Amino acid sequence: MPRSITAFSNPLIKRIRSLRDKRHRRAEGLFLAEGLRILTEAREAGRLPQFLFHTAEGARHPLVDALVTATESAGGEVIETSADILSKLSGKDNPGAVVAAYPEFDTSLDGIDRHAAPLWLVAERLRDPGNLGTILRTADAVGAGGLILVDDCVDPFSVEAVRASMGAIFTVPLAKTGWDAFERWLRTDAGTLVGLSLATDLDYQAPTYPAPTFLMTGNEAQGMPEAIAAACDLLVKIPMYGKADSLNAAVATAVMAYEVRNQLRRRS
Amino acid sequence: MPRSITAFSNPLIKRIRSLRDKRHRRAEGLFLAEGLRILTEAREAGRLPQFLFHTAEGARHPLVDALVTATESAGGEVIETSADILSKLSGKDNPGAVVAAYPEFDTSLDGIDRHAAPLWLVAERLRDPGNLGTILRTADAVGAGGLILVDDCVDPFSVEAVRASMGAIFTVPLAKTGWDAFERWLRTDAGTLVGLSLATDLDYQAPTYPAPTFLMTGNEAQGMPEAIAAACDLLVKIPMYGKADSLNAAVATAVMAYEVRNQLRRRS
Repeated sequence: MPRSITAFSNPLIKRIRSLRDKRHRRAEGLFLAEGLRILTEAREAGRLPQFLFHTAEGARHPLVDALVTATESAGGEVIETSADILSKLSGKDNPGAVVAAYPEFDTSLDGIDRHAAPLWLVAERLRDPGNLGTILRTADAVGAGGLILVDDCVDPFSVEAVRASMGAIFTVPLAKTGWDAFERWLRTDAGTLVGLSLATDLDYQAPTYPAPTFLMTGNEAQGMPEAIAAACDLLVKIPMYGKADSLNAAVATAVMAYEVRNQLRRRS
Repeated sequence: MPRSITAFSNPLIKRIRSLRDKRHRRAEGLFLAEGLRILTEAREAGRLPQFLFHTAEGARHPLVDALVTATESAGGEVIETSADILSKLSGKDNPGAVVAAYPEFDTSLDGIDRHAAPLWLVAERLRDPGNLGTILRTADAVGAGGLILVDDCVDPFSVEAVRASMGAIFTVPLAKTGWDAFERWLRTDAGTLVGLSLATDLDYQAPTYPAPTFLMTGNEAQGMPEAIAAACDLLVKIPMYGKADSLNAAVATAVMAYEVRNQLRRRS
């Protein structure tokens, strides 16, 4: 029999809601995700929540039922609550049928097997959670091995990043590291580091990209620092035909990632 | 001598702040933009604000000075105010040196000359303002003739869309219309309508895209309605190599738009 909570003042509701804040996520080791589609994708990837919240109505949906069963089997807690409390937890007017709190994953570089895929994405000091989540979604779509976050990136477990990832947070391997550690790790084995840059004339369609290629996107406003750009094997640019000098960071990453993927499929 | 406002309760401050709301934008025919880079891009494109707000400190910057001079010459009003009031107007903690209110543009289909460019972007019931602004930014980057909004899209003059456009709202021709009117207009002259779809097997790199190509992206959650998909000359899909079935709408638009642009430059 699932536990039921109907009071906004319930301590568990306050605790789960506090996960919208990075400090509380770090302290709890938990993050929030919402929506039946994303939670189902998580379940199919073997990720189950520590706390699952649903409405009485929602529980009649077979996918909610599957989530409830799987969560309970894995030792998680299932809580029936009101639509208003679900809204409060998610911060959205219309959060869908379910909100859940998941244990954060290991994000060490040791978890990355570079030979598992021909293409990897790297983000350097990326600041916008929507961009980070969108890049995770693109990493999944393009069949990248994963996303490596270098230096002070926005938290991938923020509500906005998880939402923009559309579930890819659960399916795409993710590592967080500093530049020095990343460079040391990169140079221990094969791997071509390709930086997206505005300060080069090399068109992104000109090179042949070997596997594994590590495709790096810098900070939205500043791009990469010079020292990091200098450490890249290649700097390439996407041609710009208009008045502005740059694309959105997530868009540029995707245009570039599909170029590498398209080359790989032509050669295979 | 510029007018100075220091009180949050000033009626003009309340009026300008109300432009964050679509109903007030419609009533006033004005929209908000912020940040020196974007406002300077607007000025260079010949767009000047009806109201320009800056801080006393900001006025010492030569680009703010250029904006002040141009705004006054064009009959707009320049107001010196506090950083706190600028924050209140923009809704951001750190709005930069300037916030301004611009007259909304004409967005009728009559303003579009299809022969001005080989590629046009079309969005159908796009709901996310960040996606809309990002697509405008991409339209500029890829040298598209403009963006045509079909049926019930989010307001391109919303603060979030203007911000994500990074100035492209001022430089990229924009039209808003209904599907029937768009289809009638499209079929009066040359133009290939290409729809991005999940319900086709035709790879986006397979066709040769003639000029002008109209590249259409549907609603984020639902894609295009069947009747609209059926009216396309081509439906194409971007291959997906992961677990999810779709890319972010702005990302998919950009990957597709660069494919068309890359074909055009290879043929030219």
